Amino acid sequence: MDEEQPDVAPVVEATADDIATMEIRGAAAIGDAAAEALAIQAERSDASTPTAFRDQLRAAARELYETRPTAVSLPNALRYVLRGIEGETVPELRESTIEQAREFQADLEQAQERLGEVGANRLRDGDVVMTHCHSTDALSCVEAALDAGKHVEAIVKETRPRKQGHITAEQLREWDVPVTLVVDNAARRYLDDADHVLVGADSIAADGSVINKIGTSGLAVNARERGVPVMVAAQTIKLHPDTMTGHTVEIEMRDESEVLSETEYADITGGDRADDGLTVENPAFDVTPPRHVDAIVTERGQFPPESIVTLMRELFGETTGEPWEV
Amino acid sequence: MDEEQPDVAPVVEATADDIATMEIRGAAAIGDAAAEALAIQAERSDASTPTAFRDQLRAAARELYETRPTAVSLPNALRYVLRGIEGETVPELRESTIEQAREFQADLEQAQERLGEVGANRLRDGDVVMTHCHSTDALSCVEAALDAGKHVEAIVKETRPRKQGHITAEQLREWDVPVTLVVDNAARRYLDDADHVLVGADSIAADGSVINKIGTSGLAVNARERGVPVMVAAQTIKLHPDTMTGHTVEIEMRDESEVLSETEYADITGGDRADDGLTVENPAFDVTPPRHVDAIVTERGQFPPESIVTLMRELFGETTGEPWEV
Amino acid sequence: MDEEQPDVAPVVEATADDIATMEIRGAAAIGDAAAEALAIQAERSDASTPTAFRDQLRAAARELYETRPTAVSLPNALRYVLRGIEGETVPELRESTIEQAREFQADLEQAQERLGEVGANRLRDGDVVMTHCHSTDALSCVEAALDAGKHVEAIVKETRPRKQGHITAEQLREWDVPVTLVVDNAARRYLDDADHVLVGADSIAADGSVINKIGTSGLAVNARERGVPVMVAAQTIKLHPDTMTGHTVEIEMRDESEVLSETEYADITGGDRADDGLTVENPAFDVTPPRHVDAIVTERGQFPPESIVTLMRELFGETTGEPWEV
Amino acid sequence: MDEEQPDVAPVVEATADDIATMEIRGAAAIGDAAAEALAIQAERSDASTPTAFRDQLRAAARELYETRPTAVSLPNALRYVLRGIEGETVPELRESTIEQAREFQADLEQAQERLGEVGANRLRDGDVVMTHCHSTDALSCVEAALDAGKHVEAIVKETRPRKQGHITAEQLREWDVPVTLVVDNAARRYLDDADHVLVGADSIAADGSVINKIGTSGLAVNARERGVPVMVAAQTIKLHPDTMTGHTVEIEMRDESEVLSETEYADITGGDRADDGLTVENPAFDVTPPRHVDAIVTERGQFPPESIVTLMRELFGETTGEPWEV
Amino acid sequence: MDEEQPDVAPVVEATADDIATMEIRGAAAIGDAAAEALAIQAERSDASTPTAFRDQLRAAARELYETRPTAVSLPNALRYVLRGIEGETVPELRESTIEQAREFQADLEQAQERLGEVGANRLRDGDVVMTHCHSTDALSCVEAALDAGKHVEAIVKETRPRKQGHITAEQLREWDVPVTLVVDNAARRYLDDADHVLVGADSIAADGSVINKIGTSGLAVNARERGVPVMVAAQTIKLHPDTMTGHTVEIEMRDESEVLSETEYADITGGDRADDGLTVENPAFDVTPPRHVDAIVTERGQFPPESIVTLMRELFGETTGEPWEV
Amino acid sequence: MDEEQPDVAPVVEATADDIATMEIRGAAAIGDAAAEALAIQAERSDASTPTAFRDQLRAAARELYETRPTAVSLPNALRYVLRGIEGETVPELRESTIEQAREFQADLEQAQERLGEVGANRLRDGDVVMTHCHSTDALSCVEAALDAGKHVEAIVKETRPRKQGHITAEQLREWDVPVTLVVDNAARRYLDDADHVLVGADSIAADGSVINKIGTSGLAVNARERGVPVMVAAQTIKLHPDTMTGHTVEIEMRDESEVLSETEYADITGGDRADDGLTVENPAFDVTPPRHVDAIVTERGQFPPESIVTLMRELFGETTGEPWEV
Repeated sequence: MDEEQPDVAPVVEATADDIATMEIRGAAAIGDAAAEALAIQAERSDASTPTAFRDQLRAAARELYETRPTAVSLPNALRYVLRGIEGETVPELRESTIEQAREFQADLEQAQERLGEVGANRLRDGDVVMTHCHSTDALSCVEAALDAGKHVEAIVKETRPRKQGHITAEQLREWDVPVTLVVDNAARRYLDDADHVLVGADSIAADGSVINKIGTSGLAVNARERGVPVMVAAQTIKLHPDTMTGHTVEIEMRDESEVLSETEYADITGGDRADDGLTVENPAFDVTPPRHVDAIVTERGQFPPESIVTLMRELFGETTGEPWEV
Repeated sequence: MDEEQPDVAPVVEATADDIATMEIRGAAAIGDAAAEALAIQAERSDASTPTAFRDQLRAAARELYETRPTAVSLPNALRYVLRGIEGETVPELRESTIEQAREFQADLEQAQERLGEVGANRLRDGDVVMTHCHSTDALSCVEAALDAGKHVEAIVKETRPRKQGHITAEQLREWDVPVTLVVDNAARRYLDDADHVLVGADSIAADGSVINKIGTSGLAVNARERGVPVMVAAQTIKLHPDTMTGHTVEIEMRDESEVLSETEYADITGGDRADDGLTVENPAFDVTPPRHVDAIVTERGQFPPESIVTLMRELFGETTGEPWEV
Repeated sequence: MDEEQPDVAPVVEATADDIATMEIRGAAAIGDAAAEALAIQAERSDASTPTAFRDQLRAAARELYETRPTAVSLPNALRYVLRGIEGETVPELRESTIEQAREFQADLEQAQERLGEVGANRLRDGDVVMTHCHSTDALSCVEAALDAGKHVEAIVKETRPRKQGHITAEQLREWDVPVTLVVDNAARRYLDDADHVLVGADSIAADGSVINKIGTSGLAVNARERGVPVMVAAQTIKLHPDTMTGHTVEIEMRDESEVLSETEYADITGGDRADDGLTVENPAFDVTPPRHVDAIVTERGQFPPESIVTLMRELFGETTGEPWEV
Repeated sequence: MDEEQPDVAPVVEATADDIATMEIRGAAAIGDAAAEALAIQAERSDASTPTAFRDQLRAAARELYETRPTAVSLPNALRYVLRGIEGETVPELRESTIEQAREFQADLEQAQERLGEVGANRLRDGDVVMTHCHSTDALSCVEAALDAGKHVEAIVKETRPRKQGHITAEQLREWDVPVTLVVDNAARRYLDDADHVLVGADSIAADGSVINKIGTSGLAVNARERGVPVMVAAQTIKLHPDTMTGHTVEIEMRDESEVLSETEYADITGGDRADDGLTVENPAFDVTPPRHVDAIVTERGQFPPESIVTLMRELFGETTGEPWEV
Repeated sequence: MDEEQPDVAPVVEATADDIATMEIRGAAAIGDAAAEALAIQAERSDASTPTAFRDQLRAAARELYETRPTAVSLPNALRYVLRGIEGETVPELRESTIEQAREFQADLEQAQERLGEVGANRLRDGDVVMTHCHSTDALSCVEAALDAGKHVEAIVKETRPRKQGHITAEQLREWDVPVTLVVDNAARRYLDDADHVLVGADSIAADGSVINKIGTSGLAVNARERGVPVMVAAQTIKLHPDTMTGHTVEIEMRDESEVLSETEYADITGGDRADDGLTVENPAFDVTPPRHVDAIVTERGQFPPESIVTLMRELFGETTGEPWEV
Repeated sequence: MDEEQPDVAPVVEATADDIATMEIRGAAAIGDAAAEALAIQAERSDASTPTAFRDQLRAAARELYETRPTAVSLPNALRYVLRGIEGETVPELRESTIEQAREFQADLEQAQERLGEVGANRLRDGDVVMTHCHSTDALSCVEAALDAGKHVEAIVKETRPRKQGHITAEQLREWDVPVTLVVDNAARRYLDDADHVLVGADSIAADGSVINKIGTSGLAVNARERGVPVMVAAQTIKLHPDTMTGHTVEIEMRDESEVLSETEYADITGGDRADDGLTVENPAFDVTPPRHVDAIVTERGQFPPESIVTLMRELFGETTGEPWEV
C-alpha cells in the first residue's frame, strides 16, 4: 500500500524484535510483552483524533502479531486488549487501552497460581497422577494440592525424544513427591495404578482438541480404555483463537537428531550417511480429540473440552478477522 | 526322595547345563536342543522294560525342564515329544521317541519360513506396516512378501528402552524397504499411514492374550481406535502351555540402568545416589488382550487370538500336569 | 378471541402466502423474506403507541410463523429481529426493527461464504472428503478450499432414494474436483481413503444432534469406527430454537414411490397392488447424536456439537415462549 | 477477628438455625428460605452507607452458607441474589436486593413445572421410560407428558438399599401409568424395552458429571451400550457452583443398617457382632461422566452435559471466591 | 408308537423319578445320577444282541432326559456316556458303557477342585475379586488361591432379589477372607478397587454367551468399561449342548414375591391387591455376550468364551440329534 | 512339464469345462459336481497301483480346481474328498473315494435345511429380522422358523446397486411374512425395531471375517452400536480354506453401469462421455471383522466367528498345500 503508515511507538518495534529473535519467549512472557507494548503505544500516542489513535494501535498490534503468528499467546493478548477499548476521545481511549492491558497482565500474573488451585481441587489426598512431558501449568496443580496438605504421588513418563519427563521428575522430587519413572511404552501398564492423567497443553482448539507434546493423544486413548480420567492444565492464553474459524494448528517438525544420533543412523544404514530410504519423522506435538479428555483446567475454572469454545468467545470475541482488527 | 533315580544320559545333563548357563538361548535353539536331548536319551537308553524306559525319559524331561522353567519353548518341546510316543516294547518306544523328536525339530526348522509365507499373504502390494521392537517372526512375513514381489514400506517405532527398533530398521534397510523411524510417542499419529501393525510375541496365553515387548498393548489399543488391524507373528513354540491351566506369565523386570543413566539419575535427585522417593520401573513385556488383536500368524496358519487355545490343545495336549508327565 | 386484531401490513400476508404455497422455499429464502416482511411492517406501521407498534409486529410475526411452523429458518428470523428491538418511541422502535432486520439479512447473505471459509480451514491440501446427499453449505467449504489453492478430492455417496449425490458430483466436476462415486453401501469400505466426512444439516438440535438426510447417522457411526472425523456445515439459521425446550424435530416421511416403482412393487407382491403385508418406509432424515460428530461449521465459527446450544441462546434467546413472543 | 461484626437481622439467624437443624430441608425449600432471609435482611437493614449495607448482606450470606455448606442450592441462592445487586444508594441497594431475591424465588417456584414441560417434549406418545430412585424433577417430565395427552409407560428399578423406586411406582400408579417393577440387577435386560432412561440429580458438576443416587452411573453405562438415551432432569439449583473451581462433590456414606439387618450381619459372621473382616460400604450417590448422558433437562431448557458449565457461569458467575463474596 | 419298548432297568425309572421330583438336584448330582443309572442299566441288561443292548440304553437315556430337559447337566452326562461306547459284542458294550460312566463320574467328582486350581492361577497374591450371587465353582477358585498361600480380598454384591451374596460372604468369612459387602447398585463405584470380577454360570452357550444370575451382564458391561477382567468359573457340565444347534436357553421367571412383599405391593397400589397396571418381572438369569467376558475357567483349563464351542464338540459331539441318539 | 500326465477321466474334463463356462454355477452346484467328478474318476480309473490311482485323482482335482480357483466351494469339495481317502489297494482306494464323495454330496444336499433349523432356533416367536441382499441360507432360517410355527417379520434393505432385497422381499411375501422395505440409508433408523440382523455370506475367512455383499460391514457396525445381534447364515462350503494360510479374499469389482446409467453419467459430467475425473467404484463385497458378528450359523451348528477356523481345520485339514495335494 502506498498510503501513509500510522506512527508506531519505537518500543513496539523493540518488543516485536525481541519476540522475533526469541529473546522474549514462552507463552506468558510473550503475552505480557505484547500487552505492555500496546499500553506504551497508547501512552505515547500523539494521535489527534480517535480514528488516528485507533489506527496507530491497530498498526502496533499488526506489527507485533506478524513477528511470530504461530505463538498462540500473542494474538490472545492483542485481541484481549483491543476488543476491550472504549471511549469517545483520545484521552478516554488512551486510559481505556492502558487499563485493559494492565488487566490482561494482572490476570496473566495470577493465572498459573489460580489454575493450580482449580486443578488441585480435582485431586484427592493420596491420589497418583501420571504425567507426560513437562508443564508448569500441570505441576502447579500438584503444587497447590501439596500446599493444601494432600499427599500426591506421580508416575512420570520419560517423554522421548527430549525426555522432559526428567525435568518433571526433578521438580516433583524437590517437592518430595514420590516418583516412579517409566519409559513411554510402559504407560498402559502403569495406568492401572494412576488416578489421573495430568498434562499441560501447547494450545487448545475451538473444537475442543488439545494440542500437546507428541504422545499425549496415545496416552489419552489408553487412559479412556483403562478408565482413568484425563485432566489438561492450560491457562487461557493457550486457547487458540484462530481455530474458532476452523484453522488447524500447524505441528512443528523437529530435527531428526533428537531421535537418532549420527552413530545410530550409520548403524541402521550400514554407514550410508544419506540413505534415501531412511526417514526420521519427529513431530513435536499431536492432537487429542475432546472425547478423550475429561476436563480442561484454567485459571477461570474447569471446563469440559467441548465447551472451551464458549470461553474463547467470551475472552477473545467471535471475529473472524485478523487479531488487529477486532 | 530316597528312591533310586532313573538313569539319564550324560548328554541330557550337558544340554540342561547349556540351557541353564544360557549358552543355548533363544526360543528355537532351546526347543531344538531339548528335543535332541530326548532323542539321544532314547537312543542310548539301557532300559530293559518299557516302564524303565519311560521313567528315564520322564526323568530326562524333568531335568531339562527345571533348568529354565520360564522358557516357553522348553516345555513345548518336551510335551510335543513325550505325548506322541507309542509302543509296547523298548525298541518300539525308542524308535517312536526319536521319530517324534525329529518331527518336532523338522517342523521347528521350517516354522519361521512357513509362518512368513502365511503372514505375507495378509500383506497386499504397497502396504505399510508399523513395527514395534524386533522380531524375526514378524520380519519373516515382510521378507516373504518381498520375495513374492510385493512392495512393502515400514514405520518403525524405536522401542525404548533398548531401541530394538534400530535392529528392525537395519534389517529392513538391508532388504531395501523404505523405513520411517519414529519415537514410540509418535505411533498414534503415524497409525493413519499404516495398513497393519505387525509385531512378534514373547509368548501367547490360552486366554488369547499376547505377551510381547512393553508398549505392544498401548499400540494395539490405539490401532483399534484408528481402525488399523493388528497382526501378531509367532511360531507355535511361543504358545505357553502353562496358561491353559490359568497360570499367568510372569513379566521380567529389567535393570533401571536401561531407562536412566547415572548422570540422569543424579540430575533428577539433585545428586542423591539413593533417593528412596525415585523409583524406576522397567518391565520387559506387557499383556495385550485378544480383543485388540486381529490375527495370530503361525507356521500352522493364522488364527483369531480367541481360538489359539485350540491349537495349543492340539499340539501339546490338555493335561494339567507337569511337562514331563504328559 | 373477540378482541380487535392489530393491523398487519398487506405485504406480510403476501409473504405468508408465498411461504405457505412454497413459492418462497429454501431455508435462506424463507428467512430473508420473513425479515423483509417485518421490516416493511415496521416501516408502514400506523401505530400511535409503542405498545400498539409491538402488538402489530407480534401479530405479523405470528402470521408468518404459522404458515409453515416446521421451516427452521422462519422462527429464527422472527426471533432474531424481535428480540433485538429497542426504543422508547414508535420512531425509535421502527428504526430499530428495520436495522435489526437488515442486520439479519446482511448476515444471511454472507453466511454461506463465511461458513465456507471456516470449513475450508479444516481441509488440508490433498485431503479427500466423503459427502452424503447434496448441501450447498458443505460444498461452500470445498469451494473455499479450492479458492485457497488447495487440491481436494471427493468420494460421493449416491444417496438413495433420490440420488442427490449426483448433483453433488456434478457441482464438484464443474469445479474440476476428482470424484469417486459409490453406492451408499460402499461407504465403509471407502472411508479408509477419506480424510473427512463432510455433510450439511437440515437442522441442528439443542442437545447437539444433527438432523440430516437419511443415512447420515449410519455414516457417522462408521466414520467414528474407522477414525475419520465428521464435519457438519450448517448456517446458524439451521439451529432449531424449539429444541432448546426439548422439542424433537419431526421427521418427514416421503412417498414410497421414491423407493419402489410400481413395477418393482408388483414384482415383489406377485402382482398384488395393495398388499397389506408390504410396507415401504421412506423417512427423509435421521438424527446423528453429538458423540459421532467432530465439529459443526457455521458462519460464526466452528463448534463442537455439544456447545452449539450456547450459540443458539446467544442468537435467539432462551425464551420458552412462541417465536412471536420473545 | 476482633473487628466489629455487621448487624445481621434476627430472621437470618432463625433461618440459618432451621437449615442447620434440617427443619428446612430439600433443595428448593432451602434455596427459597435463603433468598427470603436475604430479602428481609435488606428490608430491615439499618445501614447508613452502601458499604455498610453490603457488609451486612455479606455477613448474612456467610452465616446462612456456613450452616450447611454441602447443600448445593444454598450457595446458588446466595450467589444469584448477591451478584445481581446494583445501586449507588442504600435505598437502591435495598430495592435491588429484594427484587433479585423475589426473582430467584419466582423462578424457583415455577422451575419444576417448566422443567417438566421441557422434559415432556423429549417424550413421544407411547414411550417407555426406565427410572432409577425417586425424583420429583424426573416425574414432572412424565406428568407434563401425560398432561399433553401422551401415553407413557415406566420400568421402575426398585433402587436398593432404600427402595425409593417404590415411591416412584406409587406416584406413577396414581397417575395411572403402567409400571413394571424390577430389581436393579434386571435393568440391562429391560433396557431393550425402554426408549429413555430418565433420572434426577443430586447435583451437577461443571465438568458435566451428574451426581445422583448410587446405581445411576452403572445404569447409564449399560444404557449407552444398549443404545438407549439417558435424560437427567434437574433444576438449575442443582448445578454445583463449587465444581467450577474444580471441587469434587463429597459423596455421603450412609449407615450400614440400610444394607444389612442385624440378623443378616450375624448370619454372615457366624454370630460375631464386631467382625473386623466384614465391612459394609453404603455410598448414597455416584458420579456419571458426561459421555454417558444425552441431555440435562432444566427449567431453562435442555443442555448436553458438556455445556452445562455455560449455564452455571451465566446464573452464578465465574468467581472463584466464597458464595458471600461474589 | 405301537412298537415294543426296550426294557429299561427299574433303577433308571427310580432315578428319573428322583430327578423329576427334584429329590436329586444340582447340576453335579443330576449328572452323576444319570451316569450311574446308565451304568446300572448296562450291568443289568438282558439284551441278547448288540442292537437290543443299544436300544435299551437309548431308551434309558431318553427316559432320563425327558424328566427334566432344561437341566443342562443331564443331556451332558447322557451324551458323554453314550458317544464313548464301543464294542462288537454285548459284553464289550456293557464294559464300555460302565467304563465310560465311571470316567464321567470320576471327572465330575474332581471337576470343581481342578477348576479351582485353574482359576486360582489367574489370581495374584493380594488381588481383590468382586463377586455376584453365590457359586461354589467361583468360590473354589478363591479357596485354591488361599490354599496356595495367596492373600485374597472380596467385594461381595448382595445380589437382589434373593441376596445370595450373603451366602458368599458367609463362606468367605469362614475362610477369613476380608469382605466388603455392597448393594448391587454400588458395583460400578467399587470396580475401581477390584482386580477381577469372578462369577459362576448357570449354563454356557455355544456362541460364547454366559447365562448366569440376573445382574451378571450389567456388571460385565461395567467391568469392561472400567478395565476390570471378567472371569467365569464353570464346570464343563454347564456347557449347554442344545445351544450348538442354535437353541437359546430359556430364562426362568420367578415369583414376584421375591421382589415385593404384600405390604410393599399394597403401598404402591394404594391397597389394590390386583392392580393390572403394576407388573413385577423377576427373571432369574440374564445373558452376557462373549465380548464382555475375558475367560471361562473349567476343570479342563481356561478358555476365551469364543472358543468354548470347541470344547463342547470335543466332549459331547456335534450331533444335532437328541441326547439319546448320539 | 514334459513328464507323462496321469489319465484323467473325460467326465472330469467335461465337468471342468462346465464350471469354467459357468454352465455349472452357484456354490452348492459346483461343490456337488466336483465331488461327482472325483467319484467317477475313481470308478473309471484304470490305475494298476495305488500310487498311479492317487496320481490320477490328484490330476483330476487339479484340473477341476484350476478352472475357477476363486469359487470357494470348489477347493472345499476337493479337499474334503481327497483327505478322507484311505486304503492299501486300488479297490480299497476306489471304494473309499466314492464313499467320501457321496458323503460330501449327501451333507451338501441337506446342509441348507439343517442350517435353517439351527438358525431358526435363534429366532423367537415374534422376532423381527433385518436382512441385507438375498441369501437362500439366511432365508432358510426364516423358513424353518415359520415351519416351527413362529411369527417372524422382516425389515428388508433394498441393497443397492442390484437391489437383491427385492428378491428377498418377494420370497418373504410368498411365505406371508410382513415386510418393511427400506433404502440402505434407512437401516440405522430401523435397527431400533429389529431383534436380529440376518445375512448370508459369500465366504468366511479363517480370521473370522465375513465376506458378504457390499454394505454388510457398515450394517454390522451400526447393529453393534444399536445393540442388535448379527447372525450370519453360511453353509460350511463357504469357509474359505485358502484363508487359513493368510490369503485374503479378492473382492470382485463390478461394472459401473450397475451404479450409474449412461444418462446419469452424462448429467454429472456435463455430457462428457469419458471424464477422467469421474470414477465409479463398484465393489461386490466387503469384509466384516469378527468383532461385529455374534454368530455364524452352519449346518454343523452355530459358532462364534472367532472359532470358525477350528471347523475349517476339522473339515478341510490344516495343510498349506494346494487343494489337490492334501
